[in-house]
Amino acid sequence: MSDPNDLSVFLDLGWQRLTRGVADKRAAARHPVLATVSPEGRPEARTVVLRAASRSAATVEVHTDGGSGKITSLAAHPFAQLHVWDDTARLQIRLSTTVQIARGPDAAQKWQDVPAGARIAYGASPPPGTAIPHAHAYRKLANRDWFTVLTFEIESIELMQLTDPHKRAVFKAFDGWAGAWWVP
Amino acid sequence: MSDPNDLSVFLDLGWQRLTRGVADKRAAARHPVLATVSPEGRPEARTVVLRAASRSAATVEVHTDGGSGKITSLAAHPFAQLHVWDDTARLQIRLSTTVQIARGPDAAQKWQDVPAGARIAYGASPPPGTAIPHAHAYRKLANRDWFTVLTFEIESIELMQLTDPHKRAVFKAFDGWAGAWWVP
Repeated sequence: MSDPNDLSVFLDLGWQRLTRGVADKRAAARHPVLATVSPEGRPEARTVVLRAASRSAATVEVHTDGGSGKITSLAAHPFAQLHVWDDTARLQIRLSTTVQIARGPDAAQKWQDVPAGARIAYGASPPPGTAIPHAHAYRKLANRDWFTVLTFEIESIELMQLTDPHKRAVFKAFDGWAGAWWVP
Repeated sequence: MSDPNDLSVFLDLGWQRLTRGVADKRAAARHPVLATVSPEGRPEARTVVLRAASRSAATVEVHTDGGSGKITSLAAHPFAQLHVWDDTARLQIRLSTTVQIARGPDAAQKWQDVPAGARIAYGASPPPGTAIPHAHAYRKLANRDWFTVLTFEIESIELMQLTDPHKRAVFKAFDGWAGAWWVP
């Protein structure tokens, strides 16, 4: 039985559940919710697919259509929080991040690794979010010019575990992820 | 087979999946993600419990601890987006809202309906988010003074269904929820 007050054990759990999302399509962390702030300052959230997670680099990666609304928001406010609720571990993971946006030539290497069947997610005509006269009045382009890699650099990680009693900790990059317990 | 271009049928589906979250603890909409903007302008997201949903009033309701960080954020920026991914219906629901915050005497009637065993969620000493020396160095207060009712008034509803082909529509209060198809 590990020490319930060992912050490093708790952080290990968070990264373990997070990295499962990259390898296992059925893991909770496969589909985080990405929260951003719109150009008008309004909160937004949508499901995304976790493509990579690196504890050593303190980054997570998401791929998106360069024409999507989240790009407009991230260009205006380059901050995001990624949220995962992992029911198996009864664990909420919140990553506070800044974002780097790479597209076109800067994302060309990663485009090579996108399976042909998955490329349809990138590019649409008219662009995503355009009003259209009926539900299917659009084409998907599968166009590498719209393929966009979002690299989220993690500034802090908040973990909340709904075991009895609840426990919560926050880990920050600036002090080497030493972490601190917080009141849940 | 209903007309796939019938916007009202699509909106009915959204409300049907949303209201299930109030009655059915296992429904996806039971646990939306609540996205807000912090006083510093940063995006935030956390899981909440859906307590009520009214199509006629265009509101949804969440209960929280008045000392929680989300209250600080909503006091500074009284806007929220509530996000649900309903895997059964392959449907993403996004509610763009403004919030009314009621606490103390204004929430007294609803406090009466909170089961005794659930009251522990309201009030903590020290308050939520305080750094503490070990994981369990806090007490839950079950105090009605901290019980807070968040009523989210819905300005728009975005639905995205990942059937083949994908479909997406946005419905806004100002035109009586007539709705429009959007490119997914």
